[in-house]
Amino acid sequence: MERERDGFNHDDEDDYKKSDGGHQRVMVEEAFKDTAVPPWTKQITIRAMVTSFILSIVFIFIVMKLNLTTGVIPSLNVAAGLLGFAILRSYTALIQKCGFLKQPFTRQENTVIQTCVVASSGIAFSSGTASYMLGMSPIVAGQAEGANTPNNVKQLSLGWMIGFLFAVSFLGLFSIVPLRKMMILRYKLTYPSGTATAYLINSFHTPKGAKLAKKQVAVLFKTFCFSFVFAFFQWFFVAADGCGFSSFPTFGLQAYDKRFYFDFSSTYVGVGIICPYMVNISLLIGAILSWGVMWPLIEQKKGDWYSAETSESSLHGIQGYRVFIAIAMMLGDGLFHVVYMLIKTGTSLAMHKSEKKQSSQEIGQKYSNTEIVNYDEQRRTQSFLKDQIPNWVAFLGYVILAAISITVVPFIFHQLKWYHVLVAYAIAPVLAFCNAYGCGLTDWSLASNYGKVAIIIFSSWVGLDNGGVIAGLASCGVMMSIVSTASDLMQDFKTGYLTLASPRSMFFSQVFGTAMGCIMSPLIFWFFYKAYSVGDPEGSYPAPYGLMYRGISLLGVEGIDSLPKNCVKLSIIFFCAAIATNILTELLRRYETKYGLCRFIPSPMCMAIPFYLGAYFAIDMCLGSLILYLWRRKNKQKANDFAPAVASGLICGDSLWGVPSAILALSGVKAPICMKFLSSSVNDKVDAFLAG
Amino acid sequence: MERERDGFNHDDEDDYKKSDGGHQRVMVEEAFKDTAVPPWTKQITIRAMVTSFILSIVFIFIVMKLNLTTGVIPSLNVAAGLLGFAILRSYTALIQKCGFLKQPFTRQENTVIQTCVVASSGIAFSSGTASYMLGMSPIVAGQAEGANTPNNVKQLSLGWMIGFLFAVSFLGLFSIVPLRKMMILRYKLTYPSGTATAYLINSFHTPKGAKLAKKQVAVLFKTFCFSFVFAFFQWFFVAADGCGFSSFPTFGLQAYDKRFYFDFSSTYVGVGIICPYMVNISLLIGAILSWGVMWPLIEQKKGDWYSAETSESSLHGIQGYRVFIAIAMMLGDGLFHVVYMLIKTGTSLAMHKSEKKQSSQEIGQKYSNTEIVNYDEQRRTQSFLKDQIPNWVAFLGYVILAAISITVVPFIFHQLKWYHVLVAYAIAPVLAFCNAYGCGLTDWSLASNYGKVAIIIFSSWVGLDNGGVIAGLASCGVMMSIVSTASDLMQDFKTGYLTLASPRSMFFSQVFGTAMGCIMSPLIFWFFYKAYSVGDPEGSYPAPYGLMYRGISLLGVEGIDSLPKNCVKLSIIFFCAAIATNILTELLRRYETKYGLCRFIPSPMCMAIPFYLGAYFAIDMCLGSLILYLWRRKNKQKANDFAPAVASGLICGDSLWGVPSAILALSGVKAPICMKFLSSSVNDKVDAFLAG
Repeated sequence: MERERDGFNHDDEDDYKKSDGGHQRVMVEEAFKDTAVPPWTKQITIRAMVTSFILSIVFIFIVMKLNLTTGVIPSLNVAAGLLGFAILRSYTALIQKCGFLKQPFTRQENTVIQTCVVASSGIAFSSGTASYMLGMSPIVAGQAEGANTPNNVKQLSLGWMIGFLFAVSFLGLFSIVPLRKMMILRYKLTYPSGTATAYLINSFHTPKGAKLAKKQVAVLFKTFCFSFVFAFFQWFFVAADGCGFSSFPTFGLQAYDKRFYFDFSSTYVGVGIICPYMVNISLLIGAILSWGVMWPLIEQKKGDWYSAETSESSLHGIQGYRVFIAIAMMLGDGLFHVVYMLIKTGTSLAMHKSEKKQSSQEIGQKYSNTEIVNYDEQRRTQSFLKDQIPNWVAFLGYVILAAISITVVPFIFHQLKWYHVLVAYAIAPVLAFCNAYGCGLTDWSLASNYGKVAIIIFSSWVGLDNGGVIAGLASCGVMMSIVSTASDLMQDFKTGYLTLASPRSMFFSQVFGTAMGCIMSPLIFWFFYKAYSVGDPEGSYPAPYGLMYRGISLLGVEGIDSLPKNCVKLSIIFFCAAIATNILTELLRRYETKYGLCRFIPSPMCMAIPFYLGAYFAIDMCLGSLILYLWRRKNKQKANDFAPAVASGLICGDSLWGVPSAILALSGVKAPICMKFLSSSVNDKVDAFLAG
Repeated sequence: MERERDGFNHDDEDDYKKSDGGHQRVMVEEAFKDTAVPPWTKQITIRAMVTSFILSIVFIFIVMKLNLTTGVIPSLNVAAGLLGFAILRSYTALIQKCGFLKQPFTRQENTVIQTCVVASSGIAFSSGTASYMLGMSPIVAGQAEGANTPNNVKQLSLGWMIGFLFAVSFLGLFSIVPLRKMMILRYKLTYPSGTATAYLINSFHTPKGAKLAKKQVAVLFKTFCFSFVFAFFQWFFVAADGCGFSSFPTFGLQAYDKRFYFDFSSTYVGVGIICPYMVNISLLIGAILSWGVMWPLIEQKKGDWYSAETSESSLHGIQGYRVFIAIAMMLGDGLFHVVYMLIKTGTSLAMHKSEKKQSSQEIGQKYSNTEIVNYDEQRRTQSFLKDQIPNWVAFLGYVILAAISITVVPFIFHQLKWYHVLVAYAIAPVLAFCNAYGCGLTDWSLASNYGKVAIIIFSSWVGLDNGGVIAGLASCGVMMSIVSTASDLMQDFKTGYLTLASPRSMFFSQVFGTAMGCIMSPLIFWFFYKAYSVGDPEGSYPAPYGLMYRGISLLGVEGIDSLPKNCVKLSIIFFCAAIATNILTELLRRYETKYGLCRFIPSPMCMAIPFYLGAYFAIDMCLGSLILYLWRRKNKQKANDFAPAVASGLICGDSLWGVPSAILALSGVKAPICMKFLSSSVNDKVDAFLAG
């Protein structure tokens, strides 16, 4: 699942397409006819950069918290757009009142902020502090047990983390820049998230839209306050582990032992509101299948399938089944999507080629006619082509950065040689293109899947004795950074195209955001890392992907022999099941259009996450779905207008309480009360103990 | 405070007066012109009686639960009217569909149900199972310590409780019947609750009203389900005392020790919605004054003002201050109201007399003209005068019942002689008249105040050695029953007058309801009494009035010498303060009409209750007020239409969970989980204990 880019946006997409349709008739750009588009240097203003900086910190914090708890990250674009608008609008309104306003707040500025924030919080995800980097650390290595040699473990430290990120994060930007015209203008790819964001920003800057935006901000602020105060209130009851609302055995103690409970996390209720129904239901189905059925069955084989002496968190015990079956499903799902995307990209490109020939030969005139008629498109294309980024700049940039990277990365990870990095950079642009293209079609970024493939390839290439685990994980970072930023950038170009923001300002805003992300992500991660026991499967921040990614790397170096009994068999079954499920979904989508049954097939990627974590966050998220469902049934328009704001408020408030909470934890302040849940019999004992 | 008869109705009154004004112009009875009024024998139908029976059990249960927890009872008239309508309407609709309906559902039938339910649940209150009867029991006597002799204690048993209630409860009905024409027709007393209920019933039976009523019933049902399920959910976490939501230290453990916490009782949130804002705020002020300021200060004098060895619940320790200062305030408030009511009744009667003379001499013609013009009044008067209850029947009934009672009561309480009862019955009709008249003017029934006065008089008359405590408490029962039913009956006559229900059907419905109440109240009390430790100040059912009433009785027999140091001084101060506050309120009401400052003076009666119980239920109720306030600010019309339904749903659902809960308790089933709240340090100890 990873980044739920297609979170709300699938729904939004529909809504926006409708309004798009509406707008098309009245022409969006008609409304902005009298508004001059400032030159690109005036689009990147200081106030926009300051706002971006503040929001980036907020969003990196949120993404980091989500990463470290479950790794499920919803699309925060709407929240970023809304908050960026709210901050700059109130700032300019204030300045205007004082009579000092020189330059009005434009939608291009809004787009710049949006782009910068998305870029920096994108790094928070693709930097892998909670996945591949954490997988290198001794804590996770201790849990995985295999390959726990000095060569295959690396102590985390701020210095090399920031250095590594700077070395690898900017290549993605340069790798894809030359292709922007092809993707945006010629292929007219959708980029649902980017399009939705653009319509949001456009609508904010029309009078009616501004009014709605104001209301949305008010709603966001209210739910923000609620969720912050609620998180604050919850804190008082968590004097120790196993205390507090997050240990509330909502469905009884037995269900709690199987991790079925509602943990009162407003963050994940918010995430659930943003994510599509099927994602949340897939999570729940996965949780029921694994923690409800499979794990209890496997645990009965304790002593037979695996040694009864292994610790709860050892990969050679029950945890091994959890991790490797989840990995198998994820790999199956990932493999399907990569192959599917390659085929789709191939056929789509082939079609474009033949279409182009046709159009130029036969109906060329008709095409050009349409283009002239459509005022919106004309104006957008004109603006998009105005500020060029020369191809040689992009090419040169890529080569120079790759050279630096090839020098620096082996310096940080001595397990990775220069030729490994070189090979990675040779394949990367192709994969970056595939991902950007696929994302344009489906809104689904497969960056982490490419990363996982890279782990397997490079770790087995380097081998166990030469530190293949670290090499695999590091190459994952190299690959993921490029592939992920490429698709992000293209999304932003689409947004810029639709809001008449200059590609040049987009690009610089991305660069600025990426730089910020490279510094802030490790810093904020460090804050959590010091304050809590990150990576502890029983703690508040289990960071599931740390162990998962290390597990994949172990697969690469050790092969599948080290796994407990029947684990390989089960993993293969689930690997195939994941592919089969995806094929079934695609077939239904294509050939069964009457009932839309494909909507009811769960996503294997989503099902795999609770295999490791349990049902609790799935229950939060399903509650979010339930709220959204009831709200929509009551008042669909209102729900569509305000649900993203409510969800963003819930996520932001609860996540931001993380700051004071972590500070309290760092300074050793303990909550005064423990809300404890004891079974009736244990309670009698405790009462007797306390009385005597 | 006792019965919050003027709960929602003060507000309602305003609203209904408005709609009354509206109705007057269009004439309520115009709408019913074509609807025949069935004869009184057809108003009391079997289906109405069955419905009354079911609802009576429900409402007695609710009133009993409220009585045993705090003694604060809101006006349940609206809920009774609504539910009665819902049941019979759906029943008749069903029958009609089958084609078997012989007699349509009339508003007179609705009134009969309403009357019957109010009468029977009235007995649940005036039977004093939670006040004077409980005060006789050894449990409460043990807490009060003084006069703990066999002569002054009486074991509770179902037999004598039902017998006693039958002996004393019907006299009130006969005592006041002859005066109905005077009060309703001549003096045209308001009886706000009765009037409000009548308008409610009338509106239900007009097409538009039926639609609203249907919606209200739906809302009531939803909140009912919510509060039932929530209470059910809460149950799982109460494995032992001090566990569960009702022990949630919302404001921290220190505040919890001082009984400041939110106990998640939807009942009292509902009660808070029904009660006027000032009642709830008075409760909170009282709680802050007593548990926040006074008790901590007095506890510092431990060892000086009172012996440090006394138990927490002894009346010679801190509990004595709590109980007697509360009693002093209640007596002060009661005394003021009794005197005030006597003066008001006197002057009002005098005015009526002179007015009558005037009218008959000078403007007689004008009066009769108006009466002819007003169609509503004409029709109502005509209907009210049709079915007479001869005065001689009432008189004979009273004498016979009194004779039976004078024989039976001394037989049950040998401490009370026949002449004591005779004296009580000689004064009672006068007080009954006062109370019915006062209630007609202010909607405030002072029955329990008359009862308290009776306790002091009779207990000091009989004296300690002859069992004065029991004698006082029993005479309280005798007095309260008469006075309370008298005002209830007159309210119902007013309702009947406004809905064209026959006085005869009203009277018989009252008799039926009273009989049901006399049997069901002790039975349901017994259910609680066996299932829980009723009267335990630390338990779930502290039944505060049990100890209070016994305390008053002790004052009567022992005088004030037995109280701890300075308790008398403080009590006198609060007694005077209560009277002064009331005088101030009255003066402001009369002479300061600009700002309506009188609205901001708290009620001493309300302030006194948390003196004993603490703030927790006041916090629930203030939350109810807050909800109502916010709701009204958002949508006043909707809030006024649906708040009573929401409140009723909350009260009914939570209270009805009491039935399965008590059955579980009786059958020894314990909840599986204990939600415990430990301080951080104690938690560390417990964790160490559980680990080792």
